[in-house]
Parts: sequence; structure tokens; C-alpha cells
Amino acid sequence: MDKLLVIKIGGNIIDDEKKLSSFLQSFAAIAENKILVHGGGKLATNLANRLGIEQKMVEGRRITDEETLKIVTMVYAGYISKNIVAQLQSYGCNAMGLTGADGNLISAHKRNSVSEIDYGLAGDIDKINAEVLERLFDNDLIPVLSPITHDGKGQLLNTNADTIAQEIAKELANNFDVELIYCFEKAGVLLDVNDENTVIKKLTREEYQELKSPKTLNAGGKIFSGMIPKLDNAFTAIDAGVKKVVIGKAEQLLEIISGKAGTTIVNE
Amino acid sequence: MDKLLVIKIGGNIIDDEKKLSSFLQSFAAIAENKILVHGGGKLATNLANRLGIEQKMVEGRRITDEETLKIVTMVYAGYISKNIVAQLQSYGCNAMGLTGADGNLISAHKRNSVSEIDYGLAGDIDKINAEVLERLFDNDLIPVLSPITHDGKGQLLNTNADTIAQEIAKELANNFDVELIYCFEKAGVLLDVNDENTVIKKLTREEYQELKSPKTLNAGGKIFSGMIPKLDNAFTAIDAGVKKVVIGKAEQLLEIISGKAGTTIVNE
Repeated sequence: MDKLLVIKIGGNIIDDEKKLSSFLQSFAAIAENKILVHGGGKLATNLANRLGIEQKMVEGRRITDEETLKIVTMVYAGYISKNIVAQLQSYGCNAMGLTGADGNLISAHKRNSVSEIDYGLAGDIDKINAEVLERLFDNDLIPVLSPITHDGKGQLLNTNADTIAQEIAKELANNFDVELIYCFEKAGVLLDVNDENTVIKKLTREEYQELKSPKTLNAGGKIFSGMIPKLDNAFTAIDAGVKKVVIGKAEQLLEIISGKAGTTIVNE
Repeated sequence: MDKLLVIKIGGNIIDDEKKLSSFLQSFAAIAENKILVHGGGKLATNLANRLGIEQKMVEGRRITDEETLKIVTMVYAGYISKNIVAQLQSYGCNAMGLTGADGNLISAHKRNSVSEIDYGLAGDIDKINAEVLERLFDNDLIPVLSPITHDGKGQLLNTNADTIAQEIAKELANNFDVELIYCFEKAGVLLDVNDENTVIKKLTREEYQELKSPKTLNAGGKIFSGMIPKLDNAFTAIDAGVKKVVIGKAEQLLEIISGKAGTTIVNE
């Protein structure tokens, strides 16, 4: 099977013009099939503030009301997506900036209220349209995906970029050797959250279970608890057939791909 | 050769939720190859006003400074494009919302200053990438184009939607029987600008020359002078191989296509 890299970047890269530009240059240089999934960053919050639109957060999650959906659609699918695409084009990468509505790539439904919290126009993914993505690869077009989906009834929905990357990786694992790369602000999963030199190079399920066991956590950690949802997701992806998940720094993209940086999660 | 419809809509439809929705339903129903090109409308101006960004107009043209480019990218390529796409999807049309940067569809260069007017980040078109558009048709994907292009060096540019529609129609005339349809607020080219019942059904070059001759215009018109640039462009498209240009009302799209409404400009 052909190799496919699904690479996700977040706010720490998107908000930094220089880092973003250098990351995109590396991304453009990748010879294999590839998909870029980008998150939001501070731009949407800044725009909402300038427009005097209050951002409601419940338990660290943004509540997407109609005005907020308008803003994230403009910022994610408009400003961020098209600027990434224009830059990739300048580096010789034939990118196409898409949402889940384009080509019906990602269908979702409005998230049901959870414990009486209404998340508003947040979308939970129902289906990834692998066929259209594959047709784009066949035509040497590189998808750049914004974290916006749709419900098939005309409604756009705000959807977490990590989840989009994961669902795409899982779905395409049927036809590709998929590597899922999560770029974030650290060089990988750290044994000591304050020391970038303590990157765990490889993490098996067994090692992970031990690291996140209440016993280990209570004894002062060995793993930053904020990493647990990311790692749980990584193992779910592995279970669904994704060959490899790597967590690392966007600045080290090419080293991550060649196995020289980041934390690799494998099925062992 | 296969038929291809290039259809352009402007602010009068985009700003009217009901009219837009009904137009998109008609657009979705078209069986032939089709491309939708949309303009901007009042949304960009409204957003600029809310953000306190002054819109500079010189001789009726918007000057695109950096802040304005940000706004039109967000509004045209984000909000308008993705809402059109989500609606088309709900009507069973597999639309894809793209700018000229996506798939390198439209390369342009920053417009040179004209008589000392610097238009800022306005793009004049250099090349339409017919190949990528054709690949999209081959895969049953319907392009929805925003009036944003790029210079291939990472810079997005603001480009007139009428011009985009025209250049696409001309370029694709090599491989398709192209019909270019301009939707605007009137039912067609009117003999009496105040009477919608005076639509000129067919306009040949000879008739047009007579209608726009200084003699006729000085004698009180017979053609609204504001139509002259649109009609000049229509004849340029015909000269370049476009089979037919029709000017009419978006509300009458299907009648326009079946030849029952609008003003048809042909090479006779």
C-alpha cells in the first residue's frame, strides 16, 4: 500500500508567521501522499473580541453560537486556509484549501447536549469521504483541511481539528499505510514536562498503561496528564489500523518523518 | 464537445438569503458541466465598518489594502463560499469552494498603478488552469469560485468576479461549448432601463454597435450606458470562442438556460 501522511498543526504554529512559513516549506518538500489539517489559533478569538462578540467557554471548550460559527468559518476556512494554500503554492505544492462541506468530505451532526451543556453548532463526525480524498491524490492535489464540517442539510459545523485528523487517518488506513503526525508545542511526550530533553522516543501500549496508571501519576507523574487524551486518541487510531502516530514539534517535521524526532506510538 | 455553463452571481443575490437559496436550488438542478463564480456583496463592507477599517474607493473601485484583503479573504473565500457549498451539498450538488490559489486555478499579478492610482492588492489574471478544472468535472466535483487569486509567490489578490467568469469561459472554450451567464439585478439588457418588459432577447454585434453609437446614445439612449462595459466584455468572450453569453436575472436561471429569458449575445 502507498504511504500517506496526515499532519495536524495547531495555534502555536498558525499564530507565528515565521514558524508557519518554515513548517509549510518542510511540508511542501514531503514526497509521499499527504494531508494537512489545521486548527484555529488566536485569530478567531481576536476577531471576536474586536467585534465585541463574547466567547463562551464551558470546561475549556468554545461554545459555537451562530456568530461564533460565522467567525470561525471566516477565519479558519477563509483567512488561515487560503494563506496556507497561497504559501504552499509558492513552495511548489499544489494545495487545495477545503472544509468538510467541500466535496462532501466530512459529514457530521450537531453535537447533542452533554450533561445539559449545549455546545451549539459543534459537529461530531459521521463519515469521512475517502473516495474524494483519493481522487485528489490521484490528481496530485494536496488537501489542506479546515476544522469545519457540515450536516448535509446546509448547516456548517465547528469541529475539532485533532478529531478530524484522527478520523481521516483511520478511514484512509483501509487503503494506505497511514502515519498520523500531531504537531504541538513540545518536542514529544516528555517524561519531565519541564525538560525537552526527556522525549520518550517510542511508546508501546504496555509502557503507556504503566505511565498513566494512577499509581505512577500519584507518585508525581512521569507523564503530563494533559497528554493523556492525545495519547488515548493515538492508541485508538492504532487500533483502527493506522500504522504509526507521532507526536512532536512542527519545527522538526522532517526529522519526525524520518523517525529522528518526536514520540512514536506503535502497535507492539 | 461537451457543454459547460459558467455562471456568475453578484451581491444582489448573495445578500438576499431567500433569493440565494432558491438560486442555488436551480443551480444544483443543472445537468451539464457547470462552474459558479460569486462576487462579494455588502458583507465585506459591513465587516470592514464594524472593524472600523476605512474602505477607500477611487472611481468606484475598492482599493485593496492589506486589511481589506484580509476581510475579503475571510468573507468571500470563508463565509460566502462555504455557506454556498453547504447549501449546494444539501441540494445534492457536490460543490467545492475554491479560490484562484487552490489547485493553482488562477494565477494573477498585482495590478500596476494606472494614472498614479495604486489599486493595492488587486490581481489582474495571467492564467486559468483549465486542466485542474477539467479534472474536477471528471470527478463530478462542481467548482464554486471566490473572487480571490494569487501571484504564485504566496500573495493572495482581490480580483473582479466578472473578469474571473469571463477568463474561465474563454480558456475553457478550447475544450467545451461554453455558455457564460451573467446574473444581475435586471431581467436582461433593457431598451428602456425603467421597464423590465423591454428586454432585448438577442443582440448581434451589428445591433449592439448601433445601440451604443454616440448618435443613438445622444438621442436619449436605447441602452443603459452602465451596460456598455458588460456588453463589451460579452463580445470579447464571443470573439475568444465562447458560444453564447446571456445576461439576466438570477431568479430566472433555468429560463435563461433554456433560452426563455435574458439577453443572449451571439456571434452572428
